[in-house]
Amino acid sequence: MLDVEVALAEALAETGVIPVTSVAPIRAAARADRFDLAALTAEADDAGNLLIPLVRHLTRDVAAIDAVAAGRVHWGATSQDVIDTALVLQLRDAVGDVLTALDATADAAGDLAARHVATPIAGRTWLQQATPTTFGAKAATWLDGVARARQRLGQALDDALTVQFGGATGTLSALGPAGPAVADALARRLDLRVPDLPWHTERSRLVDLACALGLACGTLGKIAGDVILLAQTEVGEAHEATAPGRGGSSAMPHKQNPVASVVAAAAAVQAPGLVATMLAAMPQEHERAAGAWQAEWDTLPALVTLAARSAHAMAGALATLVVDDARMRANLDLAGGIARAEGLVAALAPALGRPQALSVVEAACRTAQSTGRTLADVAADTAEVRTHLDVAGITTALDPLESAGSSRLFVDRVRARWPRRKG
Amino acid sequence: MLDVEVALAEALAETGVIPVTSVAPIRAAARADRFDLAALTAEADDAGNLLIPLVRHLTRDVAAIDAVAAGRVHWGATSQDVIDTALVLQLRDAVGDVLTALDATADAAGDLAARHVATPIAGRTWLQQATPTTFGAKAATWLDGVARARQRLGQALDDALTVQFGGATGTLSALGPAGPAVADALARRLDLRVPDLPWHTERSRLVDLACALGLACGTLGKIAGDVILLAQTEVGEAHEATAPGRGGSSAMPHKQNPVASVVAAAAAVQAPGLVATMLAAMPQEHERAAGAWQAEWDTLPALVTLAARSAHAMAGALATLVVDDARMRANLDLAGGIARAEGLVAALAPALGRPQALSVVEAACRTAQSTGRTLADVAADTAEVRTHLDVAGITTALDPLESAGSSRLFVDRVRARWPRRKG
Amino acid sequence: MLDVEVALAEALAETGVIPVTSVAPIRAAARADRFDLAALTAEADDAGNLLIPLVRHLTRDVAAIDAVAAGRVHWGATSQDVIDTALVLQLRDAVGDVLTALDATADAAGDLAARHVATPIAGRTWLQQATPTTFGAKAATWLDGVARARQRLGQALDDALTVQFGGATGTLSALGPAGPAVADALARRLDLRVPDLPWHTERSRLVDLACALGLACGTLGKIAGDVILLAQTEVGEAHEATAPGRGGSSAMPHKQNPVASVVAAAAAVQAPGLVATMLAAMPQEHERAAGAWQAEWDTLPALVTLAARSAHAMAGALATLVVDDARMRANLDLAGGIARAEGLVAALAPALGRPQALSVVEAACRTAQSTGRTLADVAADTAEVRTHLDVAGITTALDPLESAGSSRLFVDRVRARWPRRKG
Amino acid sequence: MLDVEVALAEALAETGVIPVTSVAPIRAAARADRFDLAALTAEADDAGNLLIPLVRHLTRDVAAIDAVAAGRVHWGATSQDVIDTALVLQLRDAVGDVLTALDATADAAGDLAARHVATPIAGRTWLQQATPTTFGAKAATWLDGVARARQRLGQALDDALTVQFGGATGTLSALGPAGPAVADALARRLDLRVPDLPWHTERSRLVDLACALGLACGTLGKIAGDVILLAQTEVGEAHEATAPGRGGSSAMPHKQNPVASVVAAAAAVQAPGLVATMLAAMPQEHERAAGAWQAEWDTLPALVTLAARSAHAMAGALATLVVDDARMRANLDLAGGIARAEGLVAALAPALGRPQALSVVEAACRTAQSTGRTLADVAADTAEVRTHLDVAGITTALDPLESAGSSRLFVDRVRARWPRRKG
Repeated sequence: MLDVEVALAEALAETGVIPVTSVAPIRAAARADRFDLAALTAEADDAGNLLIPLVRHLTRDVAAIDAVAAGRVHWGATSQDVIDTALVLQLRDAVGDVLTALDATADAAGDLAARHVATPIAGRTWLQQATPTTFGAKAATWLDGVARARQRLGQALDDALTVQFGGATGTLSALGPAGPAVADALARRLDLRVPDLPWHTERSRLVDLACALGLACGTLGKIAGDVILLAQTEVGEAHEATAPGRGGSSAMPHKQNPVASVVAAAAAVQAPGLVATMLAAMPQEHERAAGAWQAEWDTLPALVTLAARSAHAMAGALATLVVDDARMRANLDLAGGIARAEGLVAALAPALGRPQALSVVEAACRTAQSTGRTLADVAADTAEVRTHLDVAGITTALDPLESAGSSRLFVDRVRARWPRRKG
Repeated sequence: MLDVEVALAEALAETGVIPVTSVAPIRAAARADRFDLAALTAEADDAGNLLIPLVRHLTRDVAAIDAVAAGRVHWGATSQDVIDTALVLQLRDAVGDVLTALDATADAAGDLAARHVATPIAGRTWLQQATPTTFGAKAATWLDGVARARQRLGQALDDALTVQFGGATGTLSALGPAGPAVADALARRLDLRVPDLPWHTERSRLVDLACALGLACGTLGKIAGDVILLAQTEVGEAHEATAPGRGGSSAMPHKQNPVASVVAAAAAVQAPGLVATMLAAMPQEHERAAGAWQAEWDTLPALVTLAARSAHAMAGALATLVVDDARMRANLDLAGGIARAEGLVAALAPALGRPQALSVVEAACRTAQSTGRTLADVAADTAEVRTHLDVAGITTALDPLESAGSSRLFVDRVRARWPRRKG
Repeated sequence: MLDVEVALAEALAETGVIPVTSVAPIRAAARADRFDLAALTAEADDAGNLLIPLVRHLTRDVAAIDAVAAGRVHWGATSQDVIDTALVLQLRDAVGDVLTALDATADAAGDLAARHVATPIAGRTWLQQATPTTFGAKAATWLDGVARARQRLGQALDDALTVQFGGATGTLSALGPAGPAVADALARRLDLRVPDLPWHTERSRLVDLACALGLACGTLGKIAGDVILLAQTEVGEAHEATAPGRGGSSAMPHKQNPVASVVAAAAAVQAPGLVATMLAAMPQEHERAAGAWQAEWDTLPALVTLAARSAHAMAGALATLVVDDARMRANLDLAGGIARAEGLVAALAPALGRPQALSVVEAACRTAQSTGRTLADVAADTAEVRTHLDVAGITTALDPLESAGSSRLFVDRVRARWPRRKG
Repeated sequence: MLDVEVALAEALAETGVIPVTSVAPIRAAARADRFDLAALTAEADDAGNLLIPLVRHLTRDVAAIDAVAAGRVHWGATSQDVIDTALVLQLRDAVGDVLTALDATADAAGDLAARHVATPIAGRTWLQQATPTTFGAKAATWLDGVARARQRLGQALDDALTVQFGGATGTLSALGPAGPAVADALARRLDLRVPDLPWHTERSRLVDLACALGLACGTLGKIAGDVILLAQTEVGEAHEATAPGRGGSSAMPHKQNPVASVVAAAAAVQAPGLVATMLAAMPQEHERAAGAWQAEWDTLPALVTLAARSAHAMAGALATLVVDDARMRANLDLAGGIARAEGLVAALAPALGRPQALSVVEAACRTAQSTGRTLADVAADTAEVRTHLDVAGITTALDPLESAGSSRLFVDRVRARWPRRKG
């Protein structure tokens, strides 16, 4: 906020509204370390916002240097001008950090996708094994989501980098005809865009940014959930890298908890409520809201913090993810390998028609399950199968990489849209 | 969903996966009026989704025409492929209707902004009169919001117009090497985009659309709230057009309720929770979710319905809004006209410095309030004012149009970005 | 709503406000099958609520029977009186049904808890195996939650069974001194409570009910999530009962999806947003809200529907849950049985002190994991263990039922608080 | 958390699980001022929670005093036992403070209700003047809401005052048969209830408390909204007490913003999203959640803080509310006094029937509005009115206190249920 007040003084001087000599005293007094935060906070309760006591203290300190300059502090602005513009400046840094962490997450997902493009893994729907896919395809889905979330967030941040400057009710009336020139100069000094008109109660830029942050948290939460599920003791196909003091349990010596993924999973639970608050706060009355604007103050910073926490956690988790290819393949053999049944249906369908092929394979699956035999064995003993496929044909039909279908193409397409950044 | 199944059959035939002769029987059977919705719904409870019984009934009906074709129904697809693609087709129509209504709302707001660019009205902050602005500036703020919401929604819809087609776990394995060609043909027939890879559990396109719908509801809710507040008995500056049977009360003959604005205000209360649900449903497990996908089914349609209801209501309300310029001006004279005090501060500040000017005017306001005199009168009797301003100067300083500041420029800028569409 | 209008006519006649002869014509006309819902809905858009056209049509129909009675329709009431009271009547039935389904869910959980009080299962924290517990304890935790949610919902429903009757602004002014007596008679006829004062804009009873419905959905969602996780192909410890046409996949013949649990899991994703809407709608202006009341209309019914759907699904799922005790025990042996390590720590701690015991057992776990041996074997070869425990002692320390600790007591306590209802 | 660790040591010693001599060293080391919060926080990121590093540091510090005691720190407990129990202890204090502030708010509302039981004010529906009511009835509605919210919150807090103590997976297995006795002793020392079984993943007590806090915020938000609306420049019927530095504007000398009410209004916007998060976090996996529990950590404290902020703000605002009876009455005369039209309908209905009375009065209102005359004048000139009422009768029919109906009874009933506490 002090940076905004200084830039405003400079803009006012540049446009001839206040004397150039008033700038230096304001700049000298506007140093954060000179302010007593506890006192400001206490006064803010009565004032209704933090900027009013800040300006009061600033004016007093400027007055101690130069009485004329003290009369020029905060000239032409309203509290919300400074509070909103300061928020935008903070968002530029903080959301920029989220973007960086999303880039790193996408890079790490892209590496996994490339490395595991031919690593078979059980596809899982409704948390049950379905047909096989590849771990590369799963990682490419992660990359696809992160890349889209990153693009959306970048665009929303760019839109939000807009100065707020309208004076009491958005007309810049206190500055007379100089108003627009001051606004331009202020925006230029802060490297922000000038809006068509002030946005004191038209909050869609910030809310769009909040939505994009929520989208990022949701996307990261999907990845985190997958990692947590893969890391289950009974699945064991991937786990976060371990380190001393990381992910242990105070009571159980053998535990290695997926601590980074849990950070992102928690963020994905928390973000929707905060985004909802930002949306609920959109109907802001007339030229300044009585409650809805103030509801943003806790909410948007909390959301940015969550997104940063989540993105950094997942960037680290994916960059060092320990993948167990052998366990992935072994799990495909669970329950007699019936998860690969679709391959058999596909191999039989041209001859039998899909309904009949489905019915034959379903019966074979049931036999495999009830007898503890593999689906391959049961199929080899089933007349309706053998009429159309020999044992080698059955083996091929049930091969998980055969079932990987077009996954390699899909991985390549996603990776092509997200070229590696590092080198 | 039947449209998707037919387009799929056509795409499969076009790419040589199924015989061309199988298409006509499928097309013949796939007529919505042939299906028993109650039976489908009942079976859907057991099946877990509506598509499974639909395909069962469709296959049975195709079989009555052509047994071979019956074996080709739904070939290579999974339930979610059809359900998601059908959703996208419905969104194209339904969100398209929202966009049209937002265009009409923007047009109406733009008309109001143009017509009232020089209509003074009290600016109101914290619901109290602050400095004057113009009704045109207020309407331009409405236009600014609607135009941005419309652009965001249009972009999000465009991104969402993407086919879903991946088979059981997103690899198109059941189609072998033909998979991508079938996907391309299917998308072309439905005029949808082909994604880099299936998005069964990567829901960001739909969630982004949900956010944009929420943004539209919030933007419309802000306008609705302003109209409701302007229509208050004690304010009376604008009200929705009346008509027989519209906005009356069952008990009070004199009431004219702002029924359209209340529709939009209600939608703005409801939308955030639905958007939050869509965000909360993003972490979808592995290749198909167990709960989160299903949570979208009620939610996204409800959100589109809300946005449509809200946008149509406000398009109508703004197009026929009754504006009372005289009441706007009269309200500026309430409380001795102290709402215009900022103009006096601005006029005195160059001479007195802003803190001193503020202090002098504050004292005059308090005198005006306690004595029931106008601020103009009190100012004319105040020595510190009269040293710098004569009576004419005071009158000018307190003129609401003088206080309109740069509002005309702002209105022009917003309108330039939203050129009238109608003619 | 028609029931309320009839009861109002009866109450007015009983208290002498309208002639007794006016009741029969109103009762005769107030039959739902006589009303054209499409026409009412269309008129409701203009009127702002559904009751206004309903009263108009009702009055017209009564007039065809008895002109005097037509003048007495809806006497003394406002639209919201009838809409709210009708909502309460519907909630009595609909939430009553939810309560019944929660009872059945609790009964089924209690049965599972009793039957499996000594069935060892891996306790799982952060989705990784921790120390053993019993499936009975898990089911008792389910029962504990459902019983509490049921009690809370029953209490909230009871509080909500309150008539709304205040006239235009809550003073019953149109009825003069007869107002309170009419309210009492109306409430008595509908078997509802009379509030201290009308609650047109004091919505805490309904919102409390919404919260209790959300609590029920969340509680059921926890159970559903556990069932889905237990049913995973790689875990396989429990699954929903199968039936023809239930839980199958359109593409994969071997799938048995947990369809009931997914219904409850989806409801748990959806409910929070709807509860948030009800809370967000609490600030209702003055004597009737402009938006917030209207926002309840879609929301509360949707929430009741969700809760009913979820409770019926889980009542069925738990009553027929297929439990695989053998698989539960087998999973405890995964990874060399290191999930039981805490028992070994506990056995060694009295002698070694807890930190040293932890350190010794951690080392043994690591050896077991890296060598593929069981923890029991490694422990038997570890000097620091053998100084204090012989092989039998190690076996006892690692016995999962030994590790069940106080779980039997906990199960008994929970069941004692929820006595079986059926017999 | 340190208090819980000390109480645990005492409980363990009391039940003979650890030597009595281990308690003093633990108590000596467990002093908050000895801990480096930054270091704990940094380690918590790796550990997954704050308790793990806290126990590590505590154990190290105890070891410096007594090596045996160091081996007994945190004995039998899991991290979540201590974190949850510590949360409950903090909630007892913090929610207790909310209850106190709600009591004060209710007292203040009750005073206003008593003082203004005969102060006429325009009833307002859809923000338009409807029939008159009294300010006392409005304040009694406030009291009714706060009293109910207070009772609900008190009950929810009472339910939540329950110890968490289950060990790694909720069986207390590490303590053998002593487990329940330790739990009882721990609870007794902390003055908490012992639950039937641990609630590591059965969170309904906390979520119910969150709902009750949300309900309180919503109730207070309704009052705040009413105060903000009454304080509008154009309404001016009540406003928050002013004080130097309170509610002023940085740009407008005449503003007196309703700062306390805006605090409560903002809280009512924020609370629903946080309650939704707590509900969304209910489905916690198995015996400890991977994300949902962790999502509570930011959320519940934020909600308590909001509720406290809101309740204290409104307690102050209502206790010092400045009420302008004269302005309330003057506003009733706006628009020719047509807000009182219902009284005229009521007076004519017995003779004309309600539809005809409504129609006559509607016409009179329209005439009054179009001609600028008062409704009383127009009515006196209307033949159909004069046939049944003389001028005195018209005056009585339009008297606002006559229209107060049963409001006095309602006020008395609400106040009787909330006896003044102060004296």
